[in-house]
Formats: sequence, C-alpha cells, structure tokens
Amino acid sequence: MHRTKVRVLEDVLDANGTIARANRADFDRARVTVVNLMSAPGAGKTTLLERVLGGLDGVRAGVLEGDVQSSLDADRIARLHIPVTQINTAPGFGGECHLDANMVRSALPSLPLDELDLLVIENVGNLVCPAEFRVGEDVRAMIVSVTEGEDKPLKYPLMFRACDLVIVNKIDLLPHLDFDVDKLLYHIEAVHPGVERMLVSARTGEGLDEVREWLVRAVKREPVPA
Amino acid sequence: MHRTKVRVLEDVLDANGTIARANRADFDRARVTVVNLMSAPGAGKTTLLERVLGGLDGVRAGVLEGDVQSSLDADRIARLHIPVTQINTAPGFGGECHLDANMVRSALPSLPLDELDLLVIENVGNLVCPAEFRVGEDVRAMIVSVTEGEDKPLKYPLMFRACDLVIVNKIDLLPHLDFDVDKLLYHIEAVHPGVERMLVSARTGEGLDEVREWLVRAVKREPVPA
Repeated sequence: MHRTKVRVLEDVLDANGTIARANRADFDRARVTVVNLMSAPGAGKTTLLERVLGGLDGVRAGVLEGDVQSSLDADRIARLHIPVTQINTAPGFGGECHLDANMVRSALPSLPLDELDLLVIENVGNLVCPAEFRVGEDVRAMIVSVTEGEDKPLKYPLMFRACDLVIVNKIDLLPHLDFDVDKLLYHIEAVHPGVERMLVSARTGEGLDEVREWLVRAVKREPVPA
Repeated sequence: MHRTKVRVLEDVLDANGTIARANRADFDRARVTVVNLMSAPGAGKTTLLERVLGGLDGVRAGVLEGDVQSSLDADRIARLHIPVTQINTAPGFGGECHLDANMVRSALPSLPLDELDLLVIENVGNLVCPAEFRVGEDVRAMIVSVTEGEDKPLKYPLMFRACDLVIVNKIDLLPHLDFDVDKLLYHIEAVHPGVERMLVSARTGEGLDEVREWLVRAVKREPVPA
C-alpha cells in the first residue's frame, strides 16, 4: 500500500508543477512578483502583512489568502484597501492543509494582476506540506515565532530549506520565554546554510523596515524579456 | 483532476479506518487506553507530557512520538524513564504531515503494550490532517497556545470538533499578549459546544493537576468484555 501511495502523490506533485509553471508564466506576463508566505498556525503572517503592506513605497501590493475555512484574514487585509482574494481549502478533503497550484490558478481571475507589482500568497498555517507544493511563486518566505521553540528547523527541515527568507517573529516576548535565539539561528544555519534571516516583532514594529526593504528588492528584479 | 484526487484520498481514508480498527482491537486486548494528542507546531505537547506523565499515580504510561524528522521529542520523554518509540514520517513523501494508522501499527511491536495502562500518541504538529486520520485511539486531546491567536477554532474547526479535550496552554504569557481568553473559549464553544476545556501553563505547572486527573479518568474506563 505504501509504495502505491507514494506513487499517487508523486503524480499529484507532477501535475502541480505543470500548473505552477502556467501560473508563473501569467505572473511574469503581468510583471507581478509573487511571494509565497508560510508558517505554522498563529506565527503572525497576517499581522505582519497588515503592518508591512501599508508602508511599501511605490509598490502596488495584493494578497491571496489561503485558509482551510473562514475569511477572517482576508477581512483584515481588506481594511488596508488593497486587493485581496480568499481561497478556502475546505471543499477539497475535509480541508486541505496547503495551497496547491490549481487552487491558486482558480483564484487568478479575481485578482487585478496587471495593476499589481507584488502579490503575497499567504499559505495555510502548516510547516509541512506547503513547502512541497510550488504555486508559481518567485520567492518563498517563512515566519517562525520564538514561542514555538528552538528545535523547529530540525523537526521541519524541508520548510526551512525551501525558503529564501526566514523571519523570526514575536521577539518582544523574549524576556518572558525560556528561549535561546542563538540556538534557533544555529539550527536554521544547520539546515539551510546562508539563508537570509530577520528578527522582528510584528506587534511592536521592530525589524519590519528590513522586511519592507526585502519585499521592495524582490519587486525590483529585472523585467522578464518578452 | 480534482474529483479524482478526492476519490483517491477517500480510498486512503477507508484503508486507514480498517487499520485503525485493528490497532484499537490490539489496544483493547492489552487493556491500554490510547490518547491521540495533537496541536500546531510549538504549542507545547512534549513539554506538557514531560510535566504530567511523571506524576500519574499508579498509571503506567508510554509514549509514541510522531515527527517528520529527528528524535528530539523522544529523547526528552526517554529522560522520564518511560517506554517511548519515535515514528519519523519523513520517508513517506518528503515528510507526511500527520500520523496514520499504518505508521502507528508499524510501531506497535516496539512497545510493551501489556505493561502499559496509558499510551499517549504525540502526533505531528499540524492543525489540519491529524484530525482526519484515526489511529486506533480511545480519546483525542488537543493543545492550543494563547500565542496563536483567538481565531484558531474558526480557521481549523475540524481539529477542535474532533477532540474530546481542548487544553489552552501558555497562560503564563497572557499578561504580555493582546489576547482575549474569553474570545477563544467563545470560539471553541461555537465550533464544538460543550467540549471540555482546561487552561494551563506547562511551563509553570498551573492547571496541570486537572490534565493529570483527566488522564487518570480516561484510563479508569470499564474493561472491555473479552
């Protein structure tokens, strides 16, 4: 049974890769940079986006919200008056635990791609499967919160390896935790040597300028030849 | 494609149910009560087990540790000098995001079931798929940490509905968070009316007696007729 299951899932990943490339071609044509933002539930993805997307100088941003159920996050982002579309994964299978390229593709018609420079895709809160499904993004970023413990890179190495940026969030809570930031950074370096890291508090705003600059740099990539 | 995918996954769940029932029969024969413990990554499952399993009067406990990779949690539990077995889900598919009945079944020979009254299965940190795969457990408990935000029951309703006990952890951090416990409890009640809830801090020990009593009550169930 196990071997069959693996083969089925490999087929699913192959199909996903084909659709992801189609998404990427559409994004390139519209000259929109796409960031796939991932984390465990409650690490602060939406709060971070609320804080950074308002202050992106000259960058027209939009958001695609992935959740098993509810439109709570999309409602929060909509208050920033930027384009936002919600994808609910619940109809899939009692709730898919990740976005796949086909879900993202089905949402594209509802987004004004030609009017955007940056599209952030906020994935379902999960440190495993989102890392396995490309959705057509240019870059991947993840958030790990200091309340989650220093061992997370060792327990979920694929997620840390798959990302171009690791944002360490909730550092305002450090005085109240038994948490060793150096140990976390050491473990991140062990599973993904040289990956860019930022220490932030989405709540107090500390470190968020660095995230904004990273996003602006991601957008200012050279245009794709026609 | 989507319809095919759903059908394949329904087959997977059917096969899982069959193996889960076989596990349950083995557990019943050995008179061991099995708790499936679930949460998001970093919510405090292992820390809670470290604190409560030592002090369970007259109950012989064992642990089955589920992780994508590493044996960090099993190593922590082993220090309590109780039987512990690690299941790594990484070989499955770049890392399965949940335990299934077959993974648990493959680990049973390494556990001294006849010498246990209680087996806690610590699932992979994930609020989606673990709720969909029964593994042969008697009862299910989940931990939600107050650092994760009050909206989690609305965003991951299946997990909250599937559990017999919701443990709200890290309440020692409440003075440092913008977090409304009543709002969380209200949302838990909305998705799973009447479910048992406990407010605890695995770090300070607050509320853990209640968890210990719940575990002892779970074990003292009437023996299954032969």
